[in-house]
Amino acid sequence: MINVAIVGYGNLGRGVEIALKNNSDMNLVGIYTRRDPELVKTLGGLVFSYDDLLSGKHEIDVCILCGGSAHDLPVQTPQIAQFYNVVDSYDNHDLIPEHFDRVNHMSEMNNHCAIVSCGWDPGIFSVQRLIGEAILPQGTTTTFWGEGVSQGHSDALRRIEGVLDAVQYTIPNEKIIEHLRNHETMTLTPRDKHVRECYVVLKEGYDQEKIRQEIVNMPHYFADYDTEVKFISLEKLKMDHEAMPHGGLVLRQGNTSKEFSHVMEYKLDLESNPEFTAAALVAYARGCARLSREKDYGAKSVLDIAPKYLSWKTNEQLRKQIL
Amino acid sequence: MINVAIVGYGNLGRGVEIALKNNSDMNLVGIYTRRDPELVKTLGGLVFSYDDLLSGKHEIDVCILCGGSAHDLPVQTPQIAQFYNVVDSYDNHDLIPEHFDRVNHMSEMNNHCAIVSCGWDPGIFSVQRLIGEAILPQGTTTTFWGEGVSQGHSDALRRIEGVLDAVQYTIPNEKIIEHLRNHETMTLTPRDKHVRECYVVLKEGYDQEKIRQEIVNMPHYFADYDTEVKFISLEKLKMDHEAMPHGGLVLRQGNTSKEFSHVMEYKLDLESNPEFTAAALVAYARGCARLSREKDYGAKSVLDIAPKYLSWKTNEQLRKQIL
Repeated sequence: MINVAIVGYGNLGRGVEIALKNNSDMNLVGIYTRRDPELVKTLGGLVFSYDDLLSGKHEIDVCILCGGSAHDLPVQTPQIAQFYNVVDSYDNHDLIPEHFDRVNHMSEMNNHCAIVSCGWDPGIFSVQRLIGEAILPQGTTTTFWGEGVSQGHSDALRRIEGVLDAVQYTIPNEKIIEHLRNHETMTLTPRDKHVRECYVVLKEGYDQEKIRQEIVNMPHYFADYDTEVKFISLEKLKMDHEAMPHGGLVLRQGNTSKEFSHVMEYKLDLESNPEFTAAALVAYARGCARLSREKDYGAKSVLDIAPKYLSWKTNEQLRKQIL
Repeated sequence: MINVAIVGYGNLGRGVEIALKNNSDMNLVGIYTRRDPELVKTLGGLVFSYDDLLSGKHEIDVCILCGGSAHDLPVQTPQIAQFYNVVDSYDNHDLIPEHFDRVNHMSEMNNHCAIVSCGWDPGIFSVQRLIGEAILPQGTTTTFWGEGVSQGHSDALRRIEGVLDAVQYTIPNEKIIEHLRNHETMTLTPRDKHVRECYVVLKEGYDQEKIRQEIVNMPHYFADYDTEVKFISLEKLKMDHEAMPHGGLVLRQGNTSKEFSHVMEYKLDLESNPEFTAAALVAYARGCARLSREKDYGAKSVLDIAPKYLSWKTNEQLRKQIL
């Protein structure tokens, strides 16, 4: 049995608690929170204080970190890697190398294994990008996201003066995807790849057209895209836009010779983004615990993990049943 | 530079020679054949005799074995693993465990690394089956092949008395695939998943209807499928059915909770089956040479290989550009 601790209990932490029930070789020993443990309602998992974890004395094979990438993980992953093996879903692509180095320092020094950024992007999508590029070096990789909610873009909408609440969907351009699937090579701008759809609740007294202009012209977030803005009531937002489906695809097009081209496509269609991300974290947590038993310490990413480590099956079973 | 030898020079060996040109860190040192080397026409690679390879004295980092799974690889992979690191595309699923053990014995004893079965199925598809099952333990994996030529089924047609030549296409059932993509769970028989399409050239004096019956009722190969038989001329067979496109998909459907299901889909659309298989072999050959440098000896499958080993990029580049 692999003893697992969940650190942080929002949507993702709850998803991990659910995912662990699907893995009979894994055992939830506790949920650690910075909130008052009395106030955290779980699906059965015992709740303890985050500080309690830092005693380093618990029988935990691996901690699954479920905090956010903006503020929690940059602090928590290196901190907890001092005491335990850890996995996280750190997803700020630009800052991954720094995060990796900090975690590597702490985990290597203390003989722990740490796997960072193991969700689906970064994560499983990264694995697909690598395999595609390695097999078809002469080619192009294109990643599409959605249809799904982008938290970063939704937050950008909420920061606009006059906006009470908002949700932003990233929608991939299906026509472009069809062209790529048909082996056509294309030079794509951000505008070609995704459409952005915004559901916005206004505060009283603000002008729809003015705010629409502010949104569609917002640099970095919306100016480079075709952006649709729909104004709705707070009730409707709560009713229709609370679900968290997501997905996306990684396409690798490439030629082996002048005559022959190939398309490798990996597609995810997820009814719950946090539950699927949690399920990926749990599979990599198994890998983390196993690598630590082999004394393979230090920080790793999904690109460093041989597939077999994700499975509960023996190598013999895998060769017989999966290969 | 990684020094590579090609062993066997049919469609696959030629595909490897082509693929190596796309990988600037790899160097073709020779093509080894059991035919008279004088008679083998390559795209530039020097040709030597197979027996010459068995001196074990060449500066070869890895041999890419391009023989067939029925007769060549069961003998050649263990034999050459005595002298060099090897990769092969052994694809007889039922016999992989035996093949693996034989190759493991020889490669371990002689401190070489051997990666078996690294095409696309077994190979990349196996990796996808493992990842899908590990992340969504409560679910179903379905693999579809085609549209493409099945060599085994074409051979079965050619063994029928009265058949001069024949080609068999395996065609996946797109309607079933659509149901699965839509999160529907189904119990599928072989007949549901694939249709078999046969293009048959008859010898003179044989009866079409009699041979059609013999084909569609042939156990193991056709009896369990809806099989269409078309009789054509030898000219037409040569003209329209010499190309070797192939592909297929691996679908993992699964639930994380009662409420939420997910679909993971991996799809290959290949204009040339041998050229793509060769490209996969070359990526795993890089991994094989690198693992051998790390003194990681013995037989492995694609399930044992961390993705990073397939790439020519450094770990730092991978984290920055791919993750």
